[in-house]
Amino acid sequence: MPTPFADRLLQAVNARRTPAVVGIDPVYASLPSELKTENPTLARAADAVEQFCRAIIDIAATRVPAVKLNSAFFEAFYDRGVAAYYRLVAYAHARGLLVIGDIKRGDIGSTAKLYAQAHLEPPAFADVDPASIPDAVTLAGYLGESSVRPFIDSAAQFGRGVFVLVRPSDPGADAVHEFPGPEAAAPPLLGRLPRFYEHMAALVRRWGEGAGLRGASGLSSVGAVVAPKDSASTGALRQAMPFTPWLVPGYGAQGAGAESCRPCFFADGRGAVINASRSVIYAFADPAIAARHGTDWRGCVTEACDRFASDVAPLLKS
Amino acid sequence: MPTPFADRLLQAVNARRTPAVVGIDPVYASLPSELKTENPTLARAADAVEQFCRAIIDIAATRVPAVKLNSAFFEAFYDRGVAAYYRLVAYAHARGLLVIGDIKRGDIGSTAKLYAQAHLEPPAFADVDPASIPDAVTLAGYLGESSVRPFIDSAAQFGRGVFVLVRPSDPGADAVHEFPGPEAAAPPLLGRLPRFYEHMAALVRRWGEGAGLRGASGLSSVGAVVAPKDSASTGALRQAMPFTPWLVPGYGAQGAGAESCRPCFFADGRGAVINASRSVIYAFADPAIAARHGTDWRGCVTEACDRFASDVAPLLKS
Repeated sequence: MPTPFADRLLQAVNARRTPAVVGIDPVYASLPSELKTENPTLARAADAVEQFCRAIIDIAATRVPAVKLNSAFFEAFYDRGVAAYYRLVAYAHARGLLVIGDIKRGDIGSTAKLYAQAHLEPPAFADVDPASIPDAVTLAGYLGESSVRPFIDSAAQFGRGVFVLVRPSDPGADAVHEFPGPEAAAPPLLGRLPRFYEHMAALVRRWGEGAGLRGASGLSSVGAVVAPKDSASTGALRQAMPFTPWLVPGYGAQGAGAESCRPCFFADGRGAVINASRSVIYAFADPAIAARHGTDWRGCVTEACDRFASDVAPLLKS
Repeated sequence: MPTPFADRLLQAVNARRTPAVVGIDPVYASLPSELKTENPTLARAADAVEQFCRAIIDIAATRVPAVKLNSAFFEAFYDRGVAAYYRLVAYAHARGLLVIGDIKRGDIGSTAKLYAQAHLEPPAFADVDPASIPDAVTLAGYLGESSVRPFIDSAAQFGRGVFVLVRPSDPGADAVHEFPGPEAAAPPLLGRLPRFYEHMAALVRRWGEGAGLRGASGLSSVGAVVAPKDSASTGALRQAMPFTPWLVPGYGAQGAGAESCRPCFFADGRGAVINASRSVIYAFADPAIAARHGTDWRGCVTEACDRFASDVAPLLKS
């Protein structure tokens, strides 16, 4: 049996001594000016983005355990962006990184099977590089168990993982995730009715119980995407998912600091990785950082990556 | 201002006199044997799939108002499948069809912006064919308004449309969409607490109210994906969304017949299109149909497409 993803992630976090994950969300207009031209063709733009991402991966490789590639930002370059995405997954693997494909797919079972083939399973074709497939993907589980089952089965079989959306970082998501809201009553004696995100948490916890998903660490390869909100509700959610690793968005450009991520971890310092995207990969656009590095945008990204890695490192200690 | 998508869809339905939409979900193993080889390379498999889909589009073009391309089935062939997807959208447009991209994307606002660029907006690059972008896409709205807003703004600006998941066809989705379930009490005097799918329906209705979305027909270009379930609950949902067109899955291979789709329509026969995928495009695998056409798989698909189109045509009459 392959080593479960949860154990591989924990080993990588321990080896790098930080739960930091660098999120790669490339936008052409935000690239360093030396990589850009006026009115590029699609081919030229996709090449520039790929070159930028390779540099980010080079910097991340010795500093963090994993990178997260956000599929949307590659799909924006159509098939050329998708081709770059797969090449970059293979490149990150070659540099020793774990790779999370941030795809947020969610569809009925018969369609989910195809998404799992595309994004998590070893390729069925001899001319596709097996290293170009991520170690784990993010998913939307809103169509129920059959929408995640093909991914979970692949995860168990091939030592891969999933992170299912439970509490997103965007405040606008509360209109859905806080349903039915504070005014909803529960049947007498049963206390408060659960909110929708708590219902999703219970489902994701259950989906992670199956054979082949929990290894030596006790953690499951079915994880959750959980943004830090107030520490009370985050802590309660952490207790409600006692073996589910979390991928935590919201740090950095989205506003959360390291301390606000503490309730995402178990008391022993395990159980979560923290993602930062824009605040690291576009650090050269921050005047305070750029002032120290001039036109050396790689130097800016390196500084921001080091800072991020060390800022969240204390969260590993109980 | 461009003609709103809802009006274009209604015109196309009226012109073809059927609300039938052919869903294109190509699986290599299910292709007609003349298109398959043993252990194909990715390149060879993707080419065969594209050839098959062109034939389906040729058949659909004179019979139905629109085709729906399911992104998962193209992504399964990596970047080559994605390239085929965009070429097939352009091909269907050239044959006079409306095209729905079945992508079910749903992510936070900053990521949704990129997904909208990839899948619904006119291309920003001169070397990308504007005809290769679908007229409408399916979306998951579970991360709230900001997750659909970039698509809705594009829809209003460019005469395009979206269909947001409200009640999926997969029975497994009930574990999420019936939340908090029949046992949940409402505050006294307020009656039954809404189910999660009713909450989503109210959100989708509201998202469809904005400027530029409702044209001469009164229907909105923000539609919903709603599977027919029992006629009482489907009828109630239809009343709760008085200007929201529905894309209805579940017909054919998934079990629903034309009559069970009737509550998806308004009393005047407008307001819904019905999708069938496997029962049409793989009709040559049905022994009863194949017996009439021998090895002529196109003949089988043509017969199934004609049957489907005429089976659901009466739903247009009040």
